[in-house]
Amino acid sequence: MVSDIVVLRYGHRTVRDYRVTSHCALVARAFGAGAIVICGAKDPEIKKSVDAVTTRWGGPFRIRFAEQWKKEMEKLKKKGYTLVHLTMYGSAVEKAEGEIRKHKKVCVIIGSQKVARGVYELADYNVGVTQQPHSEIAALAVFLDRIQAGKELSKGFKGAERKIAPKKRGKSVIALK
Amino acid sequence: MVSDIVVLRYGHRTVRDYRVTSHCALVARAFGAGAIVICGAKDPEIKKSVDAVTTRWGGPFRIRFAEQWKKEMEKLKKKGYTLVHLTMYGSAVEKAEGEIRKHKKVCVIIGSQKVARGVYELADYNVGVTQQPHSEIAALAVFLDRIQAGKELSKGFKGAERKIAPKKRGKSVIALK
Repeated sequence: MVSDIVVLRYGHRTVRDYRVTSHCALVARAFGAGAIVICGAKDPEIKKSVDAVTTRWGGPFRIRFAEQWKKEMEKLKKKGYTLVHLTMYGSAVEKAEGEIRKHKKVCVIIGSQKVARGVYELADYNVGVTQQPHSEIAALAVFLDRIQAGKELSKGFKGAERKIAPKKRGKSVIALK
Repeated sequence: MVSDIVVLRYGHRTVRDYRVTSHCALVARAFGAGAIVICGAKDPEIKKSVDAVTTRWGGPFRIRFAEQWKKEMEKLKKKGYTLVHLTMYGSAVEKAEGEIRKHKKVCVIIGSQKVARGVYELADYNVGVTQQPHSEIAALAVFLDRIQAGKELSKGFKGAERKIAPKKRGKSVIALK
């Protein structure tokens, strides 16, 4: 059963990628990953806003930047993570997920711009969430939902200042601190 | 069984929202919706790039702009669509999806900026994909995957110029025209 997830974002350009990379980080956190490593331009604004979400809504969740994707992938592999690269060219997720679920530690790699060939080669699995062009944010969310069989949807977060009480209409936020 | 899906994007600002709205449109198409209606600034660039994807990778998929979200929601309701608004404040998706799946025609509303109160009130369901802040792109994809029980993942597209042959490593694209 997957119980330790790290997301590796391949590529980030300051300003231009701000919103998309932020969405990736927030999806990683909300769907049960413990950390995101962003291999690209160091962007303190993103870190600040994601950390603010973690403070407010709970954790643990870490965000950090790295310069070299290859080094990071190798490091994570050495630490026992199974590397899964999400790409529309990869094996269909509905066929691959059963096998991937058996691993405890999974690192999910998502690209932004074109991804170097080495990523495909270093990855243990190249997996396509549909074989259509769409969004790495969507691919990440659906993949995390599937490899955890939906358990992440009711995950509790620690140290949160607030949480939501689900409602059929309107908004209800409970202050915890 | 859900067999007719329209996505309504609430809000769009030219330039600023270009990438996020594009991702929403591409996710709608890739995950089985037949159309997206964007209620916000008319943005010919988005239409052009999404239409180009549909030409290349197949359809049918329509993208259009509308000025008034309320009129659109009411029109879709009249046409028999069940309106589902995705919001972190709503009922948990894992509890709501069983009931929603029984409907044939579903319109999924996703916000960008703050959504007017009227959206919550007009919607037949307000549904949260997790009760955490993340991304409307992710929420849309996971929701569409769940209400179609994964069937959309192997959806065939008509009139495509090319398609992908899934591969464990590397890329394989088949020209169809």
